[in-house]
Amino acid sequence: MREVHEITDSPVQKKTTLYIQLADEMAQAILSGVLRVGEKMPSIRKLSGQRQLSLSTVMEAYRELEDRGLIEARPQSGFYVRQKRNLATPELTAPPKNPSHVFIDPLLTPAALWRINKEISVDFGMAILSPKLFPNQQMQRMLSQVSRQYPDLISDYGESQGDIELRRQISRRSLLWGGQVEADEIIITQGGIEALNLCLRAVTKPGDVVAIESPAYFGLLQILESFKLKALEIPTHPKTGISVEALEFATRNGEVKACVLLPNFSNPLGSLMPDENKQRVVKLLDERNIPLIEDDIYGEFCYQGDRPKPAKVYDKTGNVMLISSFTKIAAPGFRVGWVVAGKWHKQIEQLKFINTYSTPVLLQRTIAKFLETGGYDHHLRRLRKSCAEQVSYAVDAIQRYFPADTRLNVPQGGYVLWVELNSAIDTITLLQDALAEGISFTPGSLFSPSHSYRNCLRVCCVEAWTTKHEKAIERLGQLARMQLPQLALQT
Amino acid sequence: MREVHEITDSPVQKKTTLYIQLADEMAQAILSGVLRVGEKMPSIRKLSGQRQLSLSTVMEAYRELEDRGLIEARPQSGFYVRQKRNLATPELTAPPKNPSHVFIDPLLTPAALWRINKEISVDFGMAILSPKLFPNQQMQRMLSQVSRQYPDLISDYGESQGDIELRRQISRRSLLWGGQVEADEIIITQGGIEALNLCLRAVTKPGDVVAIESPAYFGLLQILESFKLKALEIPTHPKTGISVEALEFATRNGEVKACVLLPNFSNPLGSLMPDENKQRVVKLLDERNIPLIEDDIYGEFCYQGDRPKPAKVYDKTGNVMLISSFTKIAAPGFRVGWVVAGKWHKQIEQLKFINTYSTPVLLQRTIAKFLETGGYDHHLRRLRKSCAEQVSYAVDAIQRYFPADTRLNVPQGGYVLWVELNSAIDTITLLQDALAEGISFTPGSLFSPSHSYRNCLRVCCVEAWTTKHEKAIERLGQLARMQLPQLALQT
Repeated sequence: MREVHEITDSPVQKKTTLYIQLADEMAQAILSGVLRVGEKMPSIRKLSGQRQLSLSTVMEAYRELEDRGLIEARPQSGFYVRQKRNLATPELTAPPKNPSHVFIDPLLTPAALWRINKEISVDFGMAILSPKLFPNQQMQRMLSQVSRQYPDLISDYGESQGDIELRRQISRRSLLWGGQVEADEIIITQGGIEALNLCLRAVTKPGDVVAIESPAYFGLLQILESFKLKALEIPTHPKTGISVEALEFATRNGEVKACVLLPNFSNPLGSLMPDENKQRVVKLLDERNIPLIEDDIYGEFCYQGDRPKPAKVYDKTGNVMLISSFTKIAAPGFRVGWVVAGKWHKQIEQLKFINTYSTPVLLQRTIAKFLETGGYDHHLRRLRKSCAEQVSYAVDAIQRYFPADTRLNVPQGGYVLWVELNSAIDTITLLQDALAEGISFTPGSLFSPSHSYRNCLRVCCVEAWTTKHEKAIERLGQLARMQLPQLALQT
Repeated sequence: MREVHEITDSPVQKKTTLYIQLADEMAQAILSGVLRVGEKMPSIRKLSGQRQLSLSTVMEAYRELEDRGLIEARPQSGFYVRQKRNLATPELTAPPKNPSHVFIDPLLTPAALWRINKEISVDFGMAILSPKLFPNQQMQRMLSQVSRQYPDLISDYGESQGDIELRRQISRRSLLWGGQVEADEIIITQGGIEALNLCLRAVTKPGDVVAIESPAYFGLLQILESFKLKALEIPTHPKTGISVEALEFATRNGEVKACVLLPNFSNPLGSLMPDENKQRVVKLLDERNIPLIEDDIYGEFCYQGDRPKPAKVYDKTGNVMLISSFTKIAAPGFRVGWVVAGKWHKQIEQLKFINTYSTPVLLQRTIAKFLETGGYDHHLRRLRKSCAEQVSYAVDAIQRYFPADTRLNVPQGGYVLWVELNSAIDTITLLQDALAEGISFTPGSLFSPSHSYRNCLRVCCVEAWTTKHEKAIERLGQLARMQLPQLALQT
């Protein structure tokens, strides 16, 4: 098993054998383009001599690269860098034009699949990053330090708005994305998910229509369902996010009472709204008095350059409620999120008070310390790099093994991939077949209240890529092909 | 300042001077009845000789006892044990017979009063026990130990149902109150308050009528308000809790969709339902298919003997959802509560998932450790004793200083007192007067959707009783009298 990037030094990693080291190096050369598609690999004998490695070690390394789908053996000729296909990008989605009540089958959610199927060995379903990607030791020391320094925090209910130290740190960092949010404008929540609950509780009542991206994160759909809200799915582009034109049309008649968007690296599409679109949407919704709930939970997960701006940056009237969290970034187990609720600040603070009273102060203070001491930025850089790599491996594998008419969006951030298969393929059937072989993912229909996207799936890339992931994607490709009678013969 | 019982050994306590020691000893003799009401105290000269203390030390001790209202000087005669009045107990409440929408003025809640009035020096408003009553150092060591042993819990989302270790401990302890709850029946929540939200979300929809005790905890009323539920206040007796007869009548026509009760040491009344009544209510609501949400958050706070049974013990069909929490008992800052949801187990687990996903596992595991190692029982005994003492001092002071027609329920557990003043007195006015002098409490109308109980107040006894508390109660008594013109002349 190959671990690409781990923060913790596990004994397994230390024992990495020579052939894996060599395979990694060659893989890097292929993925970076030093060795090009179709090019012949160095002969085993030559490489063995150059590197002073045994023939069998080099042979093992080549077998490993073959397993990873990066090279192929040609009889009587040697090994060649394998052809990589570029799959097309999915088009603007076309959901139904009418709002619908939401029913999400809880048995199809990744957590339920885990509970029911004990034998899942490769899980592309859970959008939960591997514990190995987090600085647990460092955080543990900080937690101990903070709890020794402030033991009274253990018996402190804290304030519903949240710890002032953490709010100050969030405020300070908001300058980095042009937010200039004051500490007093921030309310700390139990992860981003509580914030989403509170925002919807503040601005909607049962039966109201909420405009959302399509496809949309099933967690959001489940919250809408539990509040008996109707969802209006808006066409969304995998590259540029929600269609501003469609949203403009949909919000014309006063039916829509709120709008929930993930402008930066939306889940599951991976879309990133251009700043201009963000600006237009903020203005449009403000003019029409429709609150915008902006979930920026993936905003920090850009692969390159500065993180994209939240739409909140363009909010002049307090009509945007910006949600974010440290759950996906720093300490998933701490469940510390936050919201800047603009006009609804007082209501959200009151709702936080009656929903969970407060978020454990000790954990808030520890995150504040982590932000303050600079360990955060270092960790964030590593985390972004890991996600970029994991996603890049998955993209390569899908391009290699999935049917040629598959469509795939290659995102610029986040760690989820949206895959659109031939319209004849049913991904719930595919899921059943995959589960029987220990592979899990989330079927597309779970991301739509109208149960569209039956031929789509979400693939989460949450841990270091290994041969087992490569093989799982290969197998998913085969299983997908089997649903296409004419193609099945070819596999 | 006198600290009656502290768990932590503060330097202040160690420096307790001789006169305070003597005063404490004499106070004990008075409160236990060794020195009876009306009896003459030993002369200062005699006591000084017996104890080999200076005359001035004994004099200081007697002044202290005078300050505490326990003795009084009679001119030319010496000191006498002061007459203690026994105030009457309030009667069965008589709220309006129709359900009403709920509006609770958030500005009157203790937390809001704190924010607005920075000068509160004696707070009887917050039902939050003093941090000094909790084993913070011990918990801090356990937290550090657990986080070192399981650093991966920091990056662990955990399961929505909660940590199995903690659920096992809760299950084990349920045998003590005859519950025999299995670990699998328990769901861990973000304090008792989240559990209450989830239970109501599971079994009601906006506009539904929920039957509650009257008076009822304003936090519950605020949750009803936010879910747009109507409240039907049921007559409740300060000794025996909700009137089963009234509840039977109120639930006859199918209008009531759920019932929320605090059978053990209800907040704010302090009432304790006899087991027979619990049994009758459970049977009644089951027959009528009305879910019973039982908030047992104060059940552990009995002053003597075994803790009372939750009504859940009599539940044969899963119609009772039992809520409890470690927030008020072990670690307020950890926000760890739980619910046994019976028939609604699956729904509540799902709602927990979408409301906050999970409760921080590290904190759950630490509480589990605390329960397992037995530190919990020791702490609980001390906590019960502290609460009993604090309440007993407050009861004495109210009996001494409040107008003679005041009614007061002396509870057998918990740490809140319900005080009913002459019907001419308005406790919102009283609160304004009190706040001007740095004293806070919660006015009675906050505990009723119909804003009844304008002549009542809740007094929370959350910290070691000191002269400052004694003086604050004395002052509240004076301020109350001032609202009675004919009596004001006598003060």
